[in-house]
Amino acid sequence: MQKIQDYILLINKELSSIDYSNKEPKELYLPIKYSLELGGKRLRPALLLLANDLFGGKAEEAINAALAIEIFHNFTLLHDDIMDNAPLRRNQPTVFKKWNANIAILSGDVMFVESIQFLAKSNPKYLSEILNLFNLTAIEVCEGQQLDMNFETLDTVSIDNYLNMIELKTAVLLASSLKIGAILADASKEDANHIYEFGKNLGVAFQLMDDILDLYGNPEKFGKQIGGDVIANKKTYLLLKAKELAKDNLKKELDFCLTSAVLDKETKVKRVAKIFDSLKIKQRAEEEMNLFYNSALAHLDSVNAPQEKKKIFEDFAKALMNRES
Amino acid sequence: MQKIQDYILLINKELSSIDYSNKEPKELYLPIKYSLELGGKRLRPALLLLANDLFGGKAEEAINAALAIEIFHNFTLLHDDIMDNAPLRRNQPTVFKKWNANIAILSGDVMFVESIQFLAKSNPKYLSEILNLFNLTAIEVCEGQQLDMNFETLDTVSIDNYLNMIELKTAVLLASSLKIGAILADASKEDANHIYEFGKNLGVAFQLMDDILDLYGNPEKFGKQIGGDVIANKKTYLLLKAKELAKDNLKKELDFCLTSAVLDKETKVKRVAKIFDSLKIKQRAEEEMNLFYNSALAHLDSVNAPQEKKKIFEDFAKALMNRES
Repeated sequence: MQKIQDYILLINKELSSIDYSNKEPKELYLPIKYSLELGGKRLRPALLLLANDLFGGKAEEAINAALAIEIFHNFTLLHDDIMDNAPLRRNQPTVFKKWNANIAILSGDVMFVESIQFLAKSNPKYLSEILNLFNLTAIEVCEGQQLDMNFETLDTVSIDNYLNMIELKTAVLLASSLKIGAILADASKEDANHIYEFGKNLGVAFQLMDDILDLYGNPEKFGKQIGGDVIANKKTYLLLKAKELAKDNLKKELDFCLTSAVLDKETKVKRVAKIFDSLKIKQRAEEEMNLFYNSALAHLDSVNAPQEKKKIFEDFAKALMNRES
Repeated sequence: MQKIQDYILLINKELSSIDYSNKEPKELYLPIKYSLELGGKRLRPALLLLANDLFGGKAEEAINAALAIEIFHNFTLLHDDIMDNAPLRRNQPTVFKKWNANIAILSGDVMFVESIQFLAKSNPKYLSEILNLFNLTAIEVCEGQQLDMNFETLDTVSIDNYLNMIELKTAVLLASSLKIGAILADASKEDANHIYEFGKNLGVAFQLMDDILDLYGNPEKFGKQIGGDVIANKKTYLLLKAKELAKDNLKKELDFCLTSAVLDKETKVKRVAKIFDSLKIKQRAEEEMNLFYNSALAHLDSVNAPQEKKKIFEDFAKALMNRES
């Protein structure tokens, strides 16, 4: 995993070398600087560089595309935070709260353009292909965000529709990051597609793990309130599966927990957890997650690349699945 | 001018052939369809095609870039309308009012991606060059919008800063449309730059004409309330020039008109018009406009292209300057 750490350092170094402080108007550029300095795991750009390395590419020829992905990702956060009315991001005020919605809209727009600018610095030989993939992915991410917002006002959502939403909102950007890295290393079409599918399936598994950790994570390491999704009636895999399976008294009890105005938060979490236990929701979610995880590994296995390099991806996937928070 | 009319028909035909009705989620795509169906003069994409023709290009090889420009322009309107809290656009409810701000943000984001998608369909030989120009222009347009918003909260703004703002917010997109058309027709660097400068200067002249028409347009043809900018204390060239020049009693009278809560609209317009007359504001604005207009024509003159084709640009520029509304 040292390689990933090195890439993360490189990405942070490159991001901090962009000179936003001297650009005018400041109202447009300081929020961009702020949002990029909030940190984040930089997993997408690091995986782009790692996929590039997997197929024998050089980091210096893929770094601009990696920056494009990270800036694009942060652009989506800026706009999502407005739409979700989110006050905090990485324990700091969101741009939308620290400045205002207009500034978050326009700074976000500029970040989007900048992401295309970085992408456009890539080898012209591959530009058309990675640009098309990037655009398609950007649209899918927007569609995922819209579906997520639509789901909030629906009574319930099928598991298939939920999985489609998290694939669009979360997984395809991870997948495209890997594929862009592969394309820039002149990987074969088959290999580029396998690494894309590895990322897409891993991305869905990752999000399902997130859903599971909300209720079953290690409270000491979780860093958020355990059961936060339950308290907010968030339509996670756990809740949707429970709604699908609960019958008779369990259904009544679940409906009560979801609609009662008198239940305190702690009791609500306890009672919902009990319903989930009766329906084996955790196990079912883990089974679903493992389907995606195993599919990811199968695609990785099909990639034609040195075994010791593929091992890094496997270890990375394992680490994501074995996290407690 | 028949050529421009033909291009506008072509652009509208192509725009209406994009199938948004069957795309999901509908909340994302119906607002895009709506905003593109609101109409608009389609001047930017028509000029792109005209510039392409000027240098011997074929419309079918420039049409995708033209659609990119028009969709990008409409994306900026979607986001600007949120920021400006504008209820109407082309006499119809804005997307932001008809749906909501979140939908206008996200539909706008998708339109932006789509504009890049259309651009990316252009001849790969020129893709890198037109993409870089497009990106730079997109950033300038955002900077112009931010400056425009900043100006609202400032007591006054220098004429230089105002001209810089309208150049960014309005003129560079017109200029880039022309230059992209030229690049796609393999025009020389010099010619592409001259047609860019023609568009930029004409764009500034056009905006100054807009400022003048607010107070001095033909009321029967203007279609808006005469003096709407005056009533709103909008920092147009006219007002900024008056603030720069007014001294002593005229300054007091102007300050009174701008701050009085008792003046009715009609009286306010009359009294401000009288101040403008004393300071010869209309003439000064026309002089400034003519500087840009003449500069535009000088750049057109320097373009190495058939005279009869350049004549269409000249006639078009003249028509823009001689409009009464």
